[in-house]
Amino acid sequence: MDHQPYNRRQFVGQLTLLGLGTGALALPNLTLARPATDKPNINHIGPQAGFTPQIGTLLSMLDWVTNSVIAYHSKLTVEQLDYLHDKDSNTIGSLMMHLAATEVVYQDITFHGLQDFSPANKPRWNVAMELQDAARQQIKGNPLSYYKDAFDEVRAVTKAEMKKRDDDWLLSGETKDWDWNNYCKWFHVTEHYANHRGQMTWYAKRIPK
Amino acid sequence: MDHQPYNRRQFVGQLTLLGLGTGALALPNLTLARPATDKPNINHIGPQAGFTPQIGTLLSMLDWVTNSVIAYHSKLTVEQLDYLHDKDSNTIGSLMMHLAATEVVYQDITFHGLQDFSPANKPRWNVAMELQDAARQQIKGNPLSYYKDAFDEVRAVTKAEMKKRDDDWLLSGETKDWDWNNYCKWFHVTEHYANHRGQMTWYAKRIPK
Repeated sequence: MDHQPYNRRQFVGQLTLLGLGTGALALPNLTLARPATDKPNINHIGPQAGFTPQIGTLLSMLDWVTNSVIAYHSKLTVEQLDYLHDKDSNTIGSLMMHLAATEVVYQDITFHGLQDFSPANKPRWNVAMELQDAARQQIKGNPLSYYKDAFDEVRAVTKAEMKKRDDDWLLSGETKDWDWNNYCKWFHVTEHYANHRGQMTWYAKRIPK
Repeated sequence: MDHQPYNRRQFVGQLTLLGLGTGALALPNLTLARPATDKPNINHIGPQAGFTPQIGTLLSMLDWVTNSVIAYHSKLTVEQLDYLHDKDSNTIGSLMMHLAATEVVYQDITFHGLQDFSPANKPRWNVAMELQDAARQQIKGNPLSYYKDAFDEVRAVTKAEMKKRDDDWLLSGETKDWDWNNYCKWFHVTEHYANHRGQMTWYAKRIPK
């Protein structure tokens, strides 16, 4: 194994290209592509201006993992985003929409006290939430920008609502029926992006040449 | 979609059993199985006694996602943990060892200033880190408890070292060559568990009956 962190990530990136399923580690371009601007460093996880410390930290993790989903699949064509590996699989694109839908349903659950999508959100997001045949039939033909735009639109709502809340809110929210506090629910949304990115990278390596 | 959070998770669990790849959401048993004891609620993400606030929160996320890897595969036999889906795949067991190895290499990188495994750790962990044929040949025949013990052993080291550190350390650590702060490196270890859990659940649904 190479002994430079920079090359270490390249090395792990090569492992990924070899199809070893370590996609999550293959993020050299996230760093290399970052221009030397005043733009905040996405690879700094921690409190963010405009949010309470724990909420800002959560949002930095959510942005980091979402960026990894897009960056890792930045070269895929529409046809590759629609690749279906087997009859029970989901396309890479439909999994991206499923992630946006998951973030939306947790907005409705944690920000609005609902137990499912709001009536306004359900028609737009339920197919992506439930996946299966309807998603295989309806979510296709989109370039990566379509999915990135969906992530950005949903994330803007998450951040606007999080701005109105504080760490006491984030650390509360357990109920008798569901003992996950709000931070657990939002950490789950965050790690759900990584869970499905692991499947997307696996599919991407097996798209017929 | 059912309107009770409890049943919502069951519903999503059913989606998972149908092979839709939403394994990360299928955690009803994590809650249902938790006995009514004084044991801390693993589903409360936040500061932990004995650690600074951000470090404790990170460890609560790391424990949550590790528990999900074990809980989701709690019924798999040795043969199922060794299931190989295709020639480029990794077994569920070898991916579990890869996760423990990833945590170990980030211990060496962030706690000890190394750029790879320590000489003591490399012989034990490098095969799991690199996966490929060596892992397919050498990591097999183990029950789930073998992998859980590895997680527990590695996590105990992570927690002992984190106890010596504080949030200023966690939020620092970027270098010119690698602009990830220590929190980013440890969030990456955390989301890496979810990344590969997404692959493990996918494999588990396709193990021949």
